Amino acid sequence: MNVPTLADIKLAARRIAPFVHKTPIFTSLTIDRFVDGEVFFKCENLQKTGAFKIRGATNAVFSLSSEQAVRGVATHSSGNHAAALAQAAHWRGITSTVVMPCNAPLVKQRAVAGYGAEVTLCEPTLQARETTLAKVVERTGATFIPPYNDYRIIAGQATAALELCAEVTDLDVVMAPVGGGGLLSGSVLAARALIPGIRVLGVEPADVDDAFRSFRAGYIIPMVKPDSIADGLLTSLGTLTFPIIKEYVHDIVTVSEEAIVSAMRLLWERMKLVVEPSAAVPLAALITHRIELSGQRIGIILSGGNVDLDDLPW
Amino acid sequence: MNVPTLADIKLAARRIAPFVHKTPIFTSLTIDRFVDGEVFFKCENLQKTGAFKIRGATNAVFSLSSEQAVRGVATHSSGNHAAALAQAAHWRGITSTVVMPCNAPLVKQRAVAGYGAEVTLCEPTLQARETTLAKVVERTGATFIPPYNDYRIIAGQATAALELCAEVTDLDVVMAPVGGGGLLSGSVLAARALIPGIRVLGVEPADVDDAFRSFRAGYIIPMVKPDSIADGLLTSLGTLTFPIIKEYVHDIVTVSEEAIVSAMRLLWERMKLVVEPSAAVPLAALITHRIELSGQRIGIILSGGNVDLDDLPW
Repeated sequence: MNVPTLADIKLAARRIAPFVHKTPIFTSLTIDRFVDGEVFFKCENLQKTGAFKIRGATNAVFSLSSEQAVRGVATHSSGNHAAALAQAAHWRGITSTVVMPCNAPLVKQRAVAGYGAEVTLCEPTLQARETTLAKVVERTGATFIPPYNDYRIIAGQATAALELCAEVTDLDVVMAPVGGGGLLSGSVLAARALIPGIRVLGVEPADVDDAFRSFRAGYIIPMVKPDSIADGLLTSLGTLTFPIIKEYVHDIVTVSEEAIVSAMRLLWERMKLVVEPSAAVPLAALITHRIELSGQRIGIILSGGNVDLDDLPW
Repeated sequence: MNVPTLADIKLAARRIAPFVHKTPIFTSLTIDRFVDGEVFFKCENLQKTGAFKIRGATNAVFSLSSEQAVRGVATHSSGNHAAALAQAAHWRGITSTVVMPCNAPLVKQRAVAGYGAEVTLCEPTLQARETTLAKVVERTGATFIPPYNDYRIIAGQATAALELCAEVTDLDVVMAPVGGGGLLSGSVLAARALIPGIRVLGVEPADVDDAFRSFRAGYIIPMVKPDSIADGLLTSLGTLTFPIIKEYVHDIVTVSEEAIVSAMRLLWERMKLVVEPSAAVPLAALITHRIELSGQRIGIILSGGNVDLDDLPW
């Protein structure tokens, strides 16, 4: 498979339609006044498994041949991709194995197991994750479904922006958070295909600014010790997502931790939406004027809503 | 005006349509499994001003003649009705005065003022509220818009159930929280008009069980010292709402404070919706099996989402 075309993204949309929500798009006059523009929020926090990740995982799982599928799927992740893959595998009726670091919160281990995955714990290092995953794949013949660096995943994540741009056809800008780049690369492919001339912006925490620096350098600069409240954005760009972002994304801007918390709280208070910190990152750029978009029509992908209610940042 | 008919409720719906949201109806397979039924949540937490109260207030304000309207409107309330009335008056371009107890949280005073009302503070007793309000009315000629004991308000609140039952036409049951009874009396009028044979249930905190006891006694038994986390349900039934409830509502059930918090948290975690404790009261009855509705199709009015994020009950 090559870089997903509009036809690939539409195929993904048809493939996942029986399983995932066509999420609603919400607006808020209060927030519009705050940012002096018109903002359209694509509510992937209301998506199955609480995040857009189910789109890519479902597309990947249902792209497998019967011969591949029967041997199951596997991944390493402690976040939304793990839950998404477990759910997608359950829908297809196949087994899934998720390798998680042994220090992952028990609540996350249970959630992933609750969606039907077999959870395999490993030491909390990237090397241990990869070694353990390799063993699982060797033993079971399962197909590895990566969290973002995979064209099937990118095409699946692209379907959120596809729906957004099909419904709000005169957007000037689409904004998405950027971690590994699966959502951002998919969004720019879909948005540009439907609305020629649209600008797509990636936003990331200033404390995890590898995408910002990579975008400017022209090559991938991985993050050494990423840390941010936006725990969905700690990963570095991938070899498949970066070239798409580099070629088509208009710019990448960064936001402070304080701005992320403020934007998150604004979404809870004013829009009554439970969103996770990562989802608030694009709005954080608007309310702190990290980017000037006054008078424009702005689509924002609210990426997810999985947050620990016992550990809120205020 | 008499007890609102379907025609009155439809007129209210047309009157308020340019201003309020037709709120979405959400479902959750997880919650359906929990309660062994199909639940349809009418999301009034996503309504303008964050609660269904804007429906009644807007209907009342836009029912006024020009002669009445020019002298403004007034009420006493520290809750969602105050904000709703202020917003509705702003839409009509008239003044509103809200009498609030001087110990009302500053954040609520500011919110009501932010919607455009003049806030008049008084001693924190019911008598002081009524005296202060009478003075405001005498001085300004403003029309008093009560929070619930008013047919214009009841007809307005009824439009939420009207939308719900028009969209989900085969509901077996509608459930609503009950405080003063504006929402419940309106809901039963609308639901029975659209779906003959539907049962409508009121739910209230066991610690504020005046509606439960009044319903059984056949006359209004006011609450002396009401206290519950569901701070929107502390009021007693009114002389206009009670007869409707007594005649048409199928039953009133009560729930514990713990059940309210559990249901509220379930809505936040699973449906990613910020709801206030009062809104979680009907679901609390389902998850604790205070009422047996297994296999049925149940509509629930999620009444509001105005909650202090710095003072959550977990």
